[in-house]
Amino acid sequence: MAGNHNGRRKAAAGNGQSRSPGQKAAKKNGRGKSEKAPAGSLFVIGGAEDRQDTKIILSRLAERIGSGKLVVSTLASEYGDELWEIYRKLFTSMGVKHIKHLGINHRDESSKDPRLGMLADATAVFFTGGDQLKITTRLGGTTLSERIEEIYNRGGIIGGTSAGATALGEMMLVGSPGGGISKVGDVLHMTPGLGLAKNMIIDQHFSERGRIRRLLGAVAQNPRMLGVGIDEDTAVVVESDGKFYALGSGAVYVVDGHDLSYTNISEASFSRALSVFGVKLHVLSSGDRFDVHSRQPAHIATGVEDSEAELRLIREEIA
Amino acid sequence: MAGNHNGRRKAAAGNGQSRSPGQKAAKKNGRGKSEKAPAGSLFVIGGAEDRQDTKIILSRLAERIGSGKLVVSTLASEYGDELWEIYRKLFTSMGVKHIKHLGINHRDESSKDPRLGMLADATAVFFTGGDQLKITTRLGGTTLSERIEEIYNRGGIIGGTSAGATALGEMMLVGSPGGGISKVGDVLHMTPGLGLAKNMIIDQHFSERGRIRRLLGAVAQNPRMLGVGIDEDTAVVVESDGKFYALGSGAVYVVDGHDLSYTNISEASFSRALSVFGVKLHVLSSGDRFDVHSRQPAHIATGVEDSEAELRLIREEIA
Repeated sequence: MAGNHNGRRKAAAGNGQSRSPGQKAAKKNGRGKSEKAPAGSLFVIGGAEDRQDTKIILSRLAERIGSGKLVVSTLASEYGDELWEIYRKLFTSMGVKHIKHLGINHRDESSKDPRLGMLADATAVFFTGGDQLKITTRLGGTTLSERIEEIYNRGGIIGGTSAGATALGEMMLVGSPGGGISKVGDVLHMTPGLGLAKNMIIDQHFSERGRIRRLLGAVAQNPRMLGVGIDEDTAVVVESDGKFYALGSGAVYVVDGHDLSYTNISEASFSRALSVFGVKLHVLSSGDRFDVHSRQPAHIATGVEDSEAELRLIREEIA
Repeated sequence: MAGNHNGRRKAAAGNGQSRSPGQKAAKKNGRGKSEKAPAGSLFVIGGAEDRQDTKIILSRLAERIGSGKLVVSTLASEYGDELWEIYRKLFTSMGVKHIKHLGINHRDESSKDPRLGMLADATAVFFTGGDQLKITTRLGGTTLSERIEEIYNRGGIIGGTSAGATALGEMMLVGSPGGGISKVGDVLHMTPGLGLAKNMIIDQHFSERGRIRRLLGAVAQNPRMLGVGIDEDTAVVVESDGKFYALGSGAVYVVDGHDLSYTNISEASFSRALSVFGVKLHVLSSGDRFDVHSRQPAHIATGVEDSEAELRLIREEIA
């Protein structure tokens, strides 16, 4: 559970305490990864991923799962059986043969949870959408959650869409209004996520629900956190080297608050509008990379071409 | 018509030509204003300003007009008479005694336009909402438009809300989708505004309509332009010293692209999602200042306190 972000830090106004007790010890100078950096990958999807047409994101995920075993968690939803049916068919049609449903909606802290067996030989876990708080209340601190983290640490793939994406972050935004005027008080609705995406706050349906402001507010509270806002039908694939790339038809907004010079978030009354000065913003589209350690985006032309070529190929297949 | 922005420039990918022919000659080093900097003020309102409750923005505007003459332009709308009735009552109730309606919806380039007389002794012009293209097609390049600019240059106040705000900018975004996934092609729908707010692209209903992405795209095309996104019931008041401050209940987003390191806007196909790396973003709330010359935001504590005290006072008056 050691933090793997070692970038420079600047003091900034706002709530500056570190939330992860293990992080300080694990911090290093320079860009070296923590020794405990997970060997796996994260597929973090901004919701409403294409399930009918080119299926760019899900087919890339299915390809990576290959002959491995996928566990689909519908813990976030009250409509678990329906969602399971949708994703079972989808992943099966894309060649995933071993697929199981993690759907029992209760909390079990014991090491005798019958659902543990299902995860024993899993290579991938996928969290469907719903309510991110349902995931963390049902899973946070359980043996089941530890097992999922083990899968990730050992090289497995953990994916999630919509609420399932948000839950993968270190902190989550919950129940805060998206559009309209955000007040200082609104953005305080943060709570810990599963913490697989270290030092990240993930927000989804991002452009579609006008969520830039709540993400800015969240980052302003503690610029240690990188804000990652993912559009619908768009994903961030976090690799074991601490870099991620964008995939899909929309954009990924990266909010870096390290150079933040002022915010009123710790001073103003809750009913006031938010002030945040000096945030760095990157908008990534399919193929663009971002290095979480150095906080630098990169554009790799071949990646984009691949992605467009891929899109063309799949379209031709369908037509 | 000399540009008044003298900040540093960096080469950036994208369309880099200068649109204002007079600008190069007028450019100076350092922060000195151009000699021709207008002596007036702009009240640029993000739409849906409060007209019932505290009326913070409109009452500040009315106060500044004082005993002067206000001309309300409804050129942007097909419902000019209804809008005129609304704003006439409003401004009259706030103490503006001399108020006229600029409402004839046709274009007249001649110096015999009967509407010119109305502007002769006007100290303020206010543009209502509607369609910004209606304003520029009916007004752009006319003697009427020159007269409005003269009022501004000589120390008058030019205000606008919604489309009327957008029209005050040097460039305007038109008809581009707000929410949803913005493609490279979408953000190309730019056209010249009235040009009173030099080097600025103004967007309104900003948080409410999720417009950050189209503004980012517009700034990426030519980082000379400062992107100013204004929420509803929120205004930017541009003073003659080239500084502006935020006023009202929402936020003002300032998009500064001078340090932009990469964009795909000049390379990618129109159907691709947008990439923009390294944009500086400031979110201002009521009382916060921004210096257009140095591109630096500033928080002045007293300004905020005044504004909150003002709000309290007006609330007490109503209760």
